[in-house]
Amino acid sequence: MLTDAFTRFTDTWSPKIAGDINDMQVKVAKFEGAFTWHHHDGEDELFLVVDGALRIELEDGVVDLVPGELVIIPRGVEHRPVAQPTANVVLFESAATVNTGNATDDARTTTDLDRLESL
Amino acid sequence: MLTDAFTRFTDTWSPKIAGDINDMQVKVAKFEGAFTWHHHDGEDELFLVVDGALRIELEDGVVDLVPGELVIIPRGVEHRPVAQPTANVVLFESAATVNTGNATDDARTTTDLDRLESL
Repeated sequence: MLTDAFTRFTDTWSPKIAGDINDMQVKVAKFEGAFTWHHHDGEDELFLVVDGALRIELEDGVVDLVPGELVIIPRGVEHRPVAQPTANVVLFESAATVNTGNATDDARTTTDLDRLESL
Repeated sequence: MLTDAFTRFTDTWSPKIAGDINDMQVKVAKFEGAFTWHHHDGEDELFLVVDGALRIELEDGVVDLVPGELVIIPRGVEHRPVAQPTANVVLFESAATVNTGNATDDARTTTDLDRLESL
């Protein structure tokens, strides 16, 4: 189950594939503190908070998410996820979406995602 | 926000479009009691329970979902959602997915979905 998925790993900012839907994927990730400002040129992205608190900073404001709430960040929109101080997050996005989008962040960019056992 | 979305309508088994992600959509729906057995020939489908309780009956078992839990039903898999007795549900699926899939159920098949204001 989804809540169990977050017990299977401890690393932060490293999404794991938890399921496939058409050509998109459900990914799960632990966020801690502030991520890197970035955007995705061709892909929309959904963040759903399961535990903790997550602020999505945008160029013109913020979106604060509590558990059970979600937001869709459209393609091209610059954003920075900031966990306060930690959050367990479900991402619903293209299999091709890279976590840091257009940005270069060698410490955080993850392109070869681990796959969890089936939810 | 997502939890507000369910206060904006009362009809059951009639998904509303709540957002777009690439060529898929976030839909929200109120389920009550048992739906129609069906499958989707070419589309996977994700159910996320926000409130209430939902059992997904399958040919070889059941999946019971409480709030915060989700399941992906792969294409071709025969299934029947049964709310116990009611559930507020988020669906992630193709814009083209019809709620009753291959089944004919004039009272429930919905092809022209209303769109909620942005979450």
